[in-house]
Amino acid sequence: MIQTNYPPSILQYLPFFFVIWSDDLLSTSEIAVVKRTIEEDQNLKEMERETLHSWLNREKPPKANVIKSWQRSISNSGIKLIESDAHPLTSFSRKLISAYDANASFNDGLTAIETNLGIQPNHYHHLFEVEVVSKKTSDYYQAQEIDSILKGRYSKEIDGFRNFLDDPIYEWSIIHDKEKFRQKVLSQLKHLSQHGYGAIAYPEAYGGKNAMPLYAHIFENLLYADGSLTVKFGVQFGLFGGSIQKLGSQKHHDRYLKDIGEGHLLGCFAMTETGHGSNVRGINTTATYNLEEDSITIHTPGKDDNKEYIGNALHGTMATVFAQLIVKGKNHGVHAILVPIRDHENKLMPGVRIEDNGYKLGLNGVDNGKIWFNQVVVPRENLLNKYGDILADGTYNSDIKNPNKRFFTMLGTLVGGRICVAKGALSGANMALSIAVKYALQRRQFNDNLKSQEDLIMDYPSHQLRLTPPIAKSYVYKATLDNLMKAYSDSGITDKRKIETQAAALKAIITWFANDTIQECREACGGKGYLQENRIADLKADVDIFTTFEGDNTVLLQLAAKGILSDFNSEFNSSGFSAVLKHLSSQIRDKLVTINPIYANKVDKEHLYNPKFHQHAFDYRTRRLTYSVAMRIRSYIKKGIPTYQAFLKVQTHLLVLGKAYSCELAYKTFYEYTLGIEDVKYRELFQKLGCLFALDEIKQDASWYLEQGYIGGTKFKAIRQRVERLCTELRPHLKSLVEGYGIPEHCLTAPISD
Amino acid sequence: MIQTNYPPSILQYLPFFFVIWSDDLLSTSEIAVVKRTIEEDQNLKEMERETLHSWLNREKPPKANVIKSWQRSISNSGIKLIESDAHPLTSFSRKLISAYDANASFNDGLTAIETNLGIQPNHYHHLFEVEVVSKKTSDYYQAQEIDSILKGRYSKEIDGFRNFLDDPIYEWSIIHDKEKFRQKVLSQLKHLSQHGYGAIAYPEAYGGKNAMPLYAHIFENLLYADGSLTVKFGVQFGLFGGSIQKLGSQKHHDRYLKDIGEGHLLGCFAMTETGHGSNVRGINTTATYNLEEDSITIHTPGKDDNKEYIGNALHGTMATVFAQLIVKGKNHGVHAILVPIRDHENKLMPGVRIEDNGYKLGLNGVDNGKIWFNQVVVPRENLLNKYGDILADGTYNSDIKNPNKRFFTMLGTLVGGRICVAKGALSGANMALSIAVKYALQRRQFNDNLKSQEDLIMDYPSHQLRLTPPIAKSYVYKATLDNLMKAYSDSGITDKRKIETQAAALKAIITWFANDTIQECREACGGKGYLQENRIADLKADVDIFTTFEGDNTVLLQLAAKGILSDFNSEFNSSGFSAVLKHLSSQIRDKLVTINPIYANKVDKEHLYNPKFHQHAFDYRTRRLTYSVAMRIRSYIKKGIPTYQAFLKVQTHLLVLGKAYSCELAYKTFYEYTLGIEDVKYRELFQKLGCLFALDEIKQDASWYLEQGYIGGTKFKAIRQRVERLCTELRPHLKSLVEGYGIPEHCLTAPISD
Repeated sequence: MIQTNYPPSILQYLPFFFVIWSDDLLSTSEIAVVKRTIEEDQNLKEMERETLHSWLNREKPPKANVIKSWQRSISNSGIKLIESDAHPLTSFSRKLISAYDANASFNDGLTAIETNLGIQPNHYHHLFEVEVVSKKTSDYYQAQEIDSILKGRYSKEIDGFRNFLDDPIYEWSIIHDKEKFRQKVLSQLKHLSQHGYGAIAYPEAYGGKNAMPLYAHIFENLLYADGSLTVKFGVQFGLFGGSIQKLGSQKHHDRYLKDIGEGHLLGCFAMTETGHGSNVRGINTTATYNLEEDSITIHTPGKDDNKEYIGNALHGTMATVFAQLIVKGKNHGVHAILVPIRDHENKLMPGVRIEDNGYKLGLNGVDNGKIWFNQVVVPRENLLNKYGDILADGTYNSDIKNPNKRFFTMLGTLVGGRICVAKGALSGANMALSIAVKYALQRRQFNDNLKSQEDLIMDYPSHQLRLTPPIAKSYVYKATLDNLMKAYSDSGITDKRKIETQAAALKAIITWFANDTIQECREACGGKGYLQENRIADLKADVDIFTTFEGDNTVLLQLAAKGILSDFNSEFNSSGFSAVLKHLSSQIRDKLVTINPIYANKVDKEHLYNPKFHQHAFDYRTRRLTYSVAMRIRSYIKKGIPTYQAFLKVQTHLLVLGKAYSCELAYKTFYEYTLGIEDVKYRELFQKLGCLFALDEIKQDASWYLEQGYIGGTKFKAIRQRVERLCTELRPHLKSLVEGYGIPEHCLTAPISD
Repeated sequence: MIQTNYPPSILQYLPFFFVIWSDDLLSTSEIAVVKRTIEEDQNLKEMERETLHSWLNREKPPKANVIKSWQRSISNSGIKLIESDAHPLTSFSRKLISAYDANASFNDGLTAIETNLGIQPNHYHHLFEVEVVSKKTSDYYQAQEIDSILKGRYSKEIDGFRNFLDDPIYEWSIIHDKEKFRQKVLSQLKHLSQHGYGAIAYPEAYGGKNAMPLYAHIFENLLYADGSLTVKFGVQFGLFGGSIQKLGSQKHHDRYLKDIGEGHLLGCFAMTETGHGSNVRGINTTATYNLEEDSITIHTPGKDDNKEYIGNALHGTMATVFAQLIVKGKNHGVHAILVPIRDHENKLMPGVRIEDNGYKLGLNGVDNGKIWFNQVVVPRENLLNKYGDILADGTYNSDIKNPNKRFFTMLGTLVGGRICVAKGALSGANMALSIAVKYALQRRQFNDNLKSQEDLIMDYPSHQLRLTPPIAKSYVYKATLDNLMKAYSDSGITDKRKIETQAAALKAIITWFANDTIQECREACGGKGYLQENRIADLKADVDIFTTFEGDNTVLLQLAAKGILSDFNSEFNSSGFSAVLKHLSSQIRDKLVTINPIYANKVDKEHLYNPKFHQHAFDYRTRRLTYSVAMRIRSYIKKGIPTYQAFLKVQTHLLVLGKAYSCELAYKTFYEYTLGIEDVKYRELFQKLGCLFALDEIKQDASWYLEQGYIGGTKFKAIRQRVERLCTELRPHLKSLVEGYGIPEHCLTAPISD
């Protein structure tokens, strides 16, 4: 018999009240749920009903000694809490009163409290001194269902490819010798080609499927097998083949694409020079047209003008070389020319010199090298001539007269690679998160003296806080990138400038996110995470450079910010500026209407979880930052500071704007995506992830929101608490969420993720 | 002849006024400097003086068209700005008026403006359309002087050791095969031992110098040679030798220390088990005393109870094994016992099993392994018996009766290793910063069309902002760690609990800082940073695990926070709590007196640069966080939540407190340290670094300060601007600052740091 002063009718409420009040986190709608349950409880006497109601007053919460008396009544029972029960807290409550009075009637309506308040094991794990028979994870959500939602229309092909990766040739192993590693990757690349995976993005006439989005899916799944293979794959089919596809004309396609897709012609994308990485327009390699021989001479003029870090440089027989095209003494800017670099016996062509880049931090299965050209002559038709051509009479011709516009149009066609890089980085984060979560669901460390078993590290609040928001982000970014790839591949959208801005912004924040996440996962796995067999080491080393290649992140964010400001660019110096500014400031004013002290301190759950609030916060931030950076630039220019310098002066501001824009874009895209999920249960899950993404982002940038008066201190605190609570609510579903990435089991070889 | 409407008397001021107003960053004291110069200028007519004064009004700044007219007068001159001049802007100004009127008189007092306002090349680089003949760096500060200040009293020994590292045996090279790498490190270790570097911390009787601080200096300098060697050195002399020195008695010292220091006896520190990393008290290896044989049996009872990740496991012949000591059936808690693991022929001893841990993310020159013991018997005297002994009659005896206290006393003696780990990590950051700064002083990318040369990337504001605050931090942490090591080694301080708290807190934030910084440097060097030859790759891989070993950072921060709360610990449940709380709340009230809307929005330079402001901000934060976390714990306990669970509920709060405490400690220690620097010129430099550290920290944690109302939006903005400005002011001295680390040239082998 348990000791308590409370009758069973009240006693059955106590576990719920204790959980509720120990964290002081009750919103109006949550109180309403509890009130309704009390109202509908037929077994309560009027006085009991009043007592229960009196315990629900947020203004006047129950005193500590009252709460303690509840706790005592619960603890004295010695009842076990069985987590595997459908509604553990409700069952516990039922057993609690039965122990007191076997015939006491129980209010089944209590289930509603447990469900509607999102009470999770973590809310009571650390509260009751009773033994909790715990389950590590919930099967409420099926990983397969989640995966299926994410895969979308290419479900069948993706599954096929994942199974294909079960071939022993893709088995992951530790290889420290770069030559051996490169040989392995080369044979894997050939194997992929033989099975049609190289040509996917090419037209059907060349053995492809004309399906760039599917190519991107293959790319991102390939990273689960190996980073070097992924990058080599991207170099061969995306960069080299892609440059011919996008910059060349029919004759080039006919001659090369099939061989490239089948892996018979391996090639390089020779753009970057030692002296010029980010500033592609400044490259110094020359391609000079020789009228008499009707040929083009490729030449490396000086020190640091060699091609640098070129993938496939040790295996390739041809290179797409980017060079300043000089025709009749006039420089027409950067163009791409096909240059054979090795003959059929794999010997270097005359005038071509290649040096191995040597060992790198990661990706040592990729053969990167430096390439020099000493007056190498190729026929005129090797010019990839879609956007600029040399006619038979030796005159230069282009439909795009403005060289600046021509340059950016050419580069713009290659932006698909940038989206793939972000996708690959995201796969790295997903894989690391899977390993870290699975480890945290086995690893136990420290306990209360009362328990026989130590606590799972996944049950520590700090561990939830380090792993759950990244999981939410990974979902948001996944849907965002898929959406962007769809738009990029949509031939109906001819003006791709907006997509370029978006790709630049997202590539930057997602590759940074991936690196931060992989590092967090490494640390979350302790020393085990440091062992190479557990895979995080390689992910960290391989994904690192994703922040640099296909555009340095810092440069890309500025590019994105300038894209956002592009409407202004032509106006900064003119009277038209004030009109643009007026438009922008009226946009901000519209937003501002809703911002007042009440809004800035609104803390109820309904508001904080409302996508309208999130969207508004992100939208407002981008507009406000755009306005202030535009004003600053304008003010510099008015003082006589040249435009180039004015932009430099706001450089750090531009980076902030670029990030804010990416976040707004990702959230908006994801939210719209969730509306298309038919199954309500999963739609809710995805929206919860979106909510966590949004609140965590506002939390991270709280100094800006506080400075602007957009949120007050109380709201900031409430947001922090909500982030922690969402992590706790998602805790039982983390396993389903990481398995939802669909990483094939044969790829997830880390012993600690077993 | 230049075109201008301004007479020479005014014209000479224009470059200064243009620089000043283009950034709107004038404090009261700065205005005073300019005003004084104007007052003392004898050549000005009264009306001219008035005009100049009217241009100094912060409330009513000069109109944009006025500023533009200045700019025009300057640009039209075609005068070159020569950065190598002692006062470039002043010389420029002088040449400007000479061009107009060869006989015009120049006010030499203008130098005062240039000097006192801290105008640096970066302030005008991006302003004038005139050609700037630029110098990459200033020689105002001598790296050698800086280095000498940092070295302190062990200057001679440190220099000697740095020269010693010029021996070819320490030449850095890329070795990917772990066996070869381990052999190299082993021979380096022996070489160090032979030259007396192993024994430094041991008493003179055993070939040492009894100088733990010097040992720590050697440790941190060793990292410039190689990370694996550093860790192996730490394992052999610090952990293995140190455990015998600190936990053993005279007989152990006599028998082993000399051999250990000379590298004749290699050993392991076998504490961590697969199942127990952070929770050392939970290890399961048993050491059972056998009364009849007067011996101790070491045994690994079950799965995951093996020793894990033990350095020297493949080369060592002995191990200090931590195990539960059981005497007469009673468990006396964790003790250390010396166990031979290999015989003279290097064969494993009976009952000992060792497995290689295999390849790791980094540190592959260290031979880590797992060790199992199957009923291995050692003599009773192998118990390291300083804090707990088995007497000849077979009874257990210890001066520290409380097992809990005994455990922490034993572990506390080993805290020196934790300080060394932080120092080693800091060396990694220093080296990466040196490479990144030197690269940024050569690497050019992008330019204004008007210039022939591209801009140095070190001249980009975003690049300054990513590298300069870490340099400031590295100086602050260096002095802080040296100070802590001094206190740890001070035999006069017997109660080391405070030092343990400090070491835990600092180790966590400094190893995180190091990893973040190395990553930032990798990205700042672009693709070049990814090449292994440029050294950052290895630093990144090696230093990574410093966040985990010698105490996981997350666990350590909680330990530190609990240390801070220790005064409360015994009181949470008693009436004494309110007294402690009262004391704390009165401390906070005292601080609060100064916080009011005026204080929260004080933005003048004098205030923002004042160490009193910094100290106050950090002090207030720690007190406030301590108070609120104590209140929360108290409130949970009052509600009946057990103490262990109450602490879990505030876990994320504890981490925040631990970080705030570390920051306060580091700033305070560093500021006191700077007061001891005799040379005013260098003291000012160090204090400027301290100022940047402080403002950057407040900026990073601005959301907290804003939430608390400690700073307002205006102040936050001013702090951000000051951080950027300090970075610009330090720009010419970055080379001296990174060379001030004293990294030997023969260690800094990265081709990009030439």
